[in-house]
Amino acid sequence: MAVAEPIYGVLLSDAMDLKSYYSLDFGDVAPDVRLLNPDEVTNPDLIRFAVCWLPGPAAFSPYPNIEMAMSVGAGVDALLKHPGLNDDVAICRVRDPNQADLMAGYAVHEVVHVERGFAKMQQSQASAEWAPPAIRPPRDLKVAVLGHGSMGASVVKALAACGFSVSVACRRDPADAVEGVRYFTGDDSVLQSVAGQDVVINVLPLTAKTENILNAALFSKLAKGAWLIQIGRGEHLAEDDFVAALDNGQLSGATLDVFRAEPLPSDHPFWADPRLRITPHIASDTTPRIVAEQTLQSARELHAGKPLSLAVSRGQGY
Amino acid sequence: MAVAEPIYGVLLSDAMDLKSYYSLDFGDVAPDVRLLNPDEVTNPDLIRFAVCWLPGPAAFSPYPNIEMAMSVGAGVDALLKHPGLNDDVAICRVRDPNQADLMAGYAVHEVVHVERGFAKMQQSQASAEWAPPAIRPPRDLKVAVLGHGSMGASVVKALAACGFSVSVACRRDPADAVEGVRYFTGDDSVLQSVAGQDVVINVLPLTAKTENILNAALFSKLAKGAWLIQIGRGEHLAEDDFVAALDNGQLSGATLDVFRAEPLPSDHPFWADPRLRITPHIASDTTPRIVAEQTLQSARELHAGKPLSLAVSRGQGY
Repeated sequence: MAVAEPIYGVLLSDAMDLKSYYSLDFGDVAPDVRLLNPDEVTNPDLIRFAVCWLPGPAAFSPYPNIEMAMSVGAGVDALLKHPGLNDDVAICRVRDPNQADLMAGYAVHEVVHVERGFAKMQQSQASAEWAPPAIRPPRDLKVAVLGHGSMGASVVKALAACGFSVSVACRRDPADAVEGVRYFTGDDSVLQSVAGQDVVINVLPLTAKTENILNAALFSKLAKGAWLIQIGRGEHLAEDDFVAALDNGQLSGATLDVFRAEPLPSDHPFWADPRLRITPHIASDTTPRIVAEQTLQSARELHAGKPLSLAVSRGQGY
Repeated sequence: MAVAEPIYGVLLSDAMDLKSYYSLDFGDVAPDVRLLNPDEVTNPDLIRFAVCWLPGPAAFSPYPNIEMAMSVGAGVDALLKHPGLNDDVAICRVRDPNQADLMAGYAVHEVVHVERGFAKMQQSQASAEWAPPAIRPPRDLKVAVLGHGSMGASVVKALAACGFSVSVACRRDPADAVEGVRYFTGDDSVLQSVAGQDVVINVLPLTAKTENILNAALFSKLAKGAWLIQIGRGEHLAEDDFVAALDNGQLSGATLDVFRAEPLPSDHPFWADPRLRITPHIASDTTPRIVAEQTLQSARELHAGKPLSLAVSRGQGY
């Protein structure tokens, strides 16, 4: 039996050391897949795929034969727009069930934290004060979820399990509808789903259609004093509209996990705004073990000429 | 047709004004059920039931003909032990689906808050510091739930929806088992369910068997540095064992919502202990509208000589 040639990939990131963080040096475990850092590449023509997280503008230039770019994160907007990747390069992404679970826990945490007044209770603890807040039945709190991919579906299920009244904007009617949840589809689904809601949670993918979708028109549909939970992408938020909605009381506050520039600069006014809860893009993350497994899977599919099961639709943008 | 005589009940609480808080003055809405405060009762012999929350030791003495005591809260331990209630007095309690939902949200909030390091992120926000914590897949966090009545089942479902690895101590195998959850039954179910777990959530009812069940023997079975979420009853916690487990590191901390004395006295050392998160018995509460509906229902069942659908088993204690 002939020994097959391995397939070669390159690791491209301006932000991190992908090989060590995700244990992508397969070595003897998978000798059929070789992953190299750019400085280890001796023959760039042999490189047939890239594993990416925030690759620089010229990152792909040295490699004329790249057929596939694999994103280690769920958001592929940066890769889809990357000038170094032609349309005939397939884009894949890690699809990690842990990510949806993490999103669900984060979303429930923020909804409960705000609704139940945990910040005030923490202050009461500091002053040894027994001060039970008023309690509202969860079903009286109306929560809109924007997006119903694996993340959105998981968020919806967890919110429903805690009894909240949930509405969802989704691309098509779900196969696995949760009892009691209202699903909206079609062009107006986003504005319909948020009408009169007390909380809106954004888990949409970033596409040309969804950029700046969190804007004055959307905020005006919400119940007065609503709360925004922004766990999509920084570019979803029209920041001037957002600040205006906070100032006029249409929004009482927001939880922001994602930003147009990350890390959020230390002099950004969001940090010190008492109406905002800021977290450093941790609502969800891929699990290193899953990244390694799915990178190997995609490389082997490419190597064998099989369909790429983790490919993203360029038309839909996710 | 003869006009039926109404049934008379009395409102007994040392802690609150039940009639106004729960809108229990049915007036013209339900003229067949009359609820009186003690000072409105002219003929105590006519009183056939009591609606109760923390009734005083002599509260029942004036009423020789009480057949039913209805608790506006889920915990009936105080009524079951009350010296003024004979064994032939039926004890009912409100069964409010909102209570289970509230418990679920509270439990997920606390698990996520501690697991994801939200306290530290709030400090980082105060200093405008972008400091993403390490993220662990939810399935790597092992959570034990003690108790699987309506509260426990709801907590389990919500935790599973967020991807945590859940084990449960329950009285019998559940009819509606959640996929992936491990259920333990039988005499050793509590100690079996907590073995090696990172978090333990107590939602057991308080009975002679469960008093002080959160003790050194239980803590020693947990993973080192585990976290306790105590949303059962104050009497479940063996406080000396608990403080010892915190001091020797077997527990890294705890969330306490219930206490042996409530309100927790302002000079109690728990308030200032940085390892503890204290909330003022708000993990769950009944909804006033449901209390009113179910009080009416129970009174009418008693009046009609029907079985009491909200009755508690004295043998089981809940």
